[in-house]
Amino acid sequence: GKRKVAARTLSHFLIFLILLNIGLAVLETVPQVRTTFGHHLRFLQLGSGFIFLIEYILRLYVADLHPPLRRYGPLWSRLRYAAHPDAIIDLIGALPLLFVLFLPNQAFTIVVILRLLRFLKLARYSPALRSLISAVVGERKALLGSSMIISGVILLSATLMYLVEHDVQPEKFRSILHGIYWAITTITTVGYGDVVPVSNLGKIVGSVVMLMGYGLIALPVGIIASAFAREIHSRDFVVTWS
Amino acid sequence: GKRKVAARTLSHFLIFLILLNIGLAVLETVPQVRTTFGHHLRFLQLGSGFIFLIEYILRLYVADLHPPLRRYGPLWSRLRYAAHPDAIIDLIGALPLLFVLFLPNQAFTIVVILRLLRFLKLARYSPALRSLISAVVGERKALLGSSMIISGVILLSATLMYLVEHDVQPEKFRSILHGIYWAITTITTVGYGDVVPVSNLGKIVGSVVMLMGYGLIALPVGIIASAFAREIHSRDFVVTWS
Amino acid sequence: GKRKVAARTLSHFLIFLILLNIGLAVLETVPQVRTTFGHHLRFLQLGSGFIFLIEYILRLYVADLHPPLRRYGPLWSRLRYAAHPDAIIDLIGALPLLFVLFLPNQAFTIVVILRLLRFLKLARYSPALRSLISAVVGERKALLGSSMIISGVILLSATLMYLVEHDVQPEKFRSILHGIYWAITTITTVGYGDVVPVSNLGKIVGSVVMLMGYGLIALPVGIIASAFAREIHSRDFVVTWS
Amino acid sequence: GKRKVAARTLSHFLIFLILLNIGLAVLETVPQVRTTFGHHLRFLQLGSGFIFLIEYILRLYVADLHPPLRRYGPLWSRLRYAAHPDAIIDLIGALPLLFVLFLPNQAFTIVVILRLLRFLKLARYSPALRSLISAVVGERKALLGSSMIISGVILLSATLMYLVEHDVQPEKFRSILHGIYWAITTITTVGYGDVVPVSNLGKIVGSVVMLMGYGLIALPVGIIASAFAREIHSRDFVVTWS
Repeated sequence: GKRKVAARTLSHFLIFLILLNIGLAVLETVPQVRTTFGHHLRFLQLGSGFIFLIEYILRLYVADLHPPLRRYGPLWSRLRYAAHPDAIIDLIGALPLLFVLFLPNQAFTIVVILRLLRFLKLARYSPALRSLISAVVGERKALLGSSMIISGVILLSATLMYLVEHDVQPEKFRSILHGIYWAITTITTVGYGDVVPVSNLGKIVGSVVMLMGYGLIALPVGIIASAFAREIHSRDFVVTWS
Repeated sequence: GKRKVAARTLSHFLIFLILLNIGLAVLETVPQVRTTFGHHLRFLQLGSGFIFLIEYILRLYVADLHPPLRRYGPLWSRLRYAAHPDAIIDLIGALPLLFVLFLPNQAFTIVVILRLLRFLKLARYSPALRSLISAVVGERKALLGSSMIISGVILLSATLMYLVEHDVQPEKFRSILHGIYWAITTITTVGYGDVVPVSNLGKIVGSVVMLMGYGLIALPVGIIASAFAREIHSRDFVVTWS
Repeated sequence: GKRKVAARTLSHFLIFLILLNIGLAVLETVPQVRTTFGHHLRFLQLGSGFIFLIEYILRLYVADLHPPLRRYGPLWSRLRYAAHPDAIIDLIGALPLLFVLFLPNQAFTIVVILRLLRFLKLARYSPALRSLISAVVGERKALLGSSMIISGVILLSATLMYLVEHDVQPEKFRSILHGIYWAITTITTVGYGDVVPVSNLGKIVGSVVMLMGYGLIALPVGIIASAFAREIHSRDFVVTWS
Repeated sequence: GKRKVAARTLSHFLIFLILLNIGLAVLETVPQVRTTFGHHLRFLQLGSGFIFLIEYILRLYVADLHPPLRRYGPLWSRLRYAAHPDAIIDLIGALPLLFVLFLPNQAFTIVVILRLLRFLKLARYSPALRSLISAVVGERKALLGSSMIISGVILLSATLMYLVEHDVQPEKFRSILHGIYWAITTITTVGYGDVVPVSNLGKIVGSVVMLMGYGLIALPVGIIASAFAREIHSRDFVVTWS
């Protein structure tokens, strides 16, 4: 009764804190926001960093009470818990604080990425990511097979386009690697338009790649989408082991 | 017999009037049309506005005759009807007239939006929107789960791209928010080409995001499309409570 | 035996002639080809035009021998056949000749379109188009319903974008009609990049439209694709009434 | 036992060698890499070329021991094996060496393509390509039918766009062939933006093509994707005849 309400309130608070932190990490890169609210943001980041650190320490401390881990004794149960993906994600969530405290004004890139990786903490509260991982693992052979076909088509069309367009646009198609970038933007139908064929032969090759690529990219996408739908419907959406 | 024909004629007339009004609201923003046919458009808009107002008043007036509402008495039945989404949509359809009458040459933005919102009145005559809502509600957990995954991927790729491209294109990748705009145009495969990676590392990150994003965006899309198809086939397409 | 072989040879020859004619109609618009091979192309076009005219006249002449038409008598059976879509397509295929003969150097646009419409003559030899029409007719209510939702979203996002971007880019977003063009390029994920939001608010609106639109456009596409697959698998691919 | 381990080690080594060769062929087109590591790359290419040649000769030599070929005698069994797609792919993998040895500094284009075609050698180790070929063959009628519809729509929209935009943008829409390039970029939703309609009528035609094309391109894609998923799930993923 009462303990369940407390647990739910706590988890709602933690979800809110994670979302707040991600929002703050994003907003902190906006120059106007940083100059105006820099101090407040820093304070909020530090505060929630402490909460995430305390959360990690507490979870690690009570790990020996978990039924499946209890039999390993006080030390091994905690070490085993620390090696669990959930615990590693919690540790990643607590790391930015340590970086900021002990390496001030350094390692900016790492701190920003680590802050955003706190998003992974939400995986604990949602079974969708686990469904996706199950779907990918279950269909790994079909995915690997169709990825190989797509890689081959990307490689071949990149090479053809490189050979056709290299002399006309030496800047855009400097090597086959640049051709691969073109092939990926084309086959995924993103089509930025920053690298396009200009010669007639290049346009013919490009048209064939577009028509073929559209069909090929659907092969793994269809497999993973239906496997995910099956997975997510078979789960009963109960958070099991938080 | 005869009453049914009258009801159908009236509903066809109202559908025609809604479509006419939407067309007029769109055309009125074309400068040439506004200068030439401005007066006629104004007259037609006012006229149909009155019809929508009368429709709303009449529907409200006869609300106490509806079998499921009758037992609430003359006042409460009408208040309950006024709170029904259908009645609110009808009220929104009648609002532009009131705005134009009492706030002339003001609140242009609101009036234009309200006029277009008359489109919602068509929902009364089609069960498709209700099917879509049922599909979304029925699959809300799967949609929320896959939306979370996509949000995470958008956030992470936006951050990576911001870190990689911020120094090369400080104008385009001013903050992670700009990176999120890039990530959304890329993952939905819209690919305008107004914000693209220019550095080699950025192109590699972009290629990975394209290949991953294409598969991820298919997860909720496949779920909602099949749920909608199921919903719409299970309905017998009879307008029930007009 | 022998007659069947003759019939198949004739139909293969006609398919070849149709494809040749379409190829010629396309090539004739290439300036270099027109100046060099203009006379030969004209000769080939006229020749195949005569064959299509003779084909139409012969088919019309023997129409009274068709079992389902025979009972209408010599005149009515031919008139009824002339009203059949297949006969109308054949007539369209024969029209360019008449235009060229009696209206030389005129009505260029109509002649080019009519020549390309000969493509429809291939529908006689393939049941795929009929499968598609059956699929569209069978799912017309679901398609109409989801088209209405998509129209509503296109209209609303066009209006919002017009209101947001009209002042910033009066050239690009001159009226809601221009906004509709933007909304269609965005929701279908074509994303040319010729009309894009530039203000921050416009980019937010655009991002929401992209994410929503991708899911909405899949609704009718999924319905029609699965209905088409069902139709085409249920047919036994036998040309029935040529 | 031991022989199986040896066979697996050899096939892993060959897969590694193929991937290495493809990587090197791609990297050799990067100017900086070619100038710095040119000699090493050349050495590696020649070395692996010899290994692929030896592999081809050995496979051909032992072809008369294959149970299904043994009964044809020493000569015919080898000739029959040489005509098998797998053997032809192996020969293609060995050809670049011969070209480089006997035609130095010539036929650059052919050598680059042949090197990349070594990718096909991987087909031996993955049943995915065979599943795709089976899926295409099994659904050839449905694919041909829907391809015909798409070709017709591409042709018709290319012609319409050519007629509408030719006078406004004579450079971009020089002939219907250029219109076909536009139509393919639009219908596959790639949408580079290098060729776009600028007139109002052109934008209307373009919008219709986008909305229609999106639905049409899904017809063959859906058929091939579900047939591929069926094929790949029915196979037991055992490499049968290596």
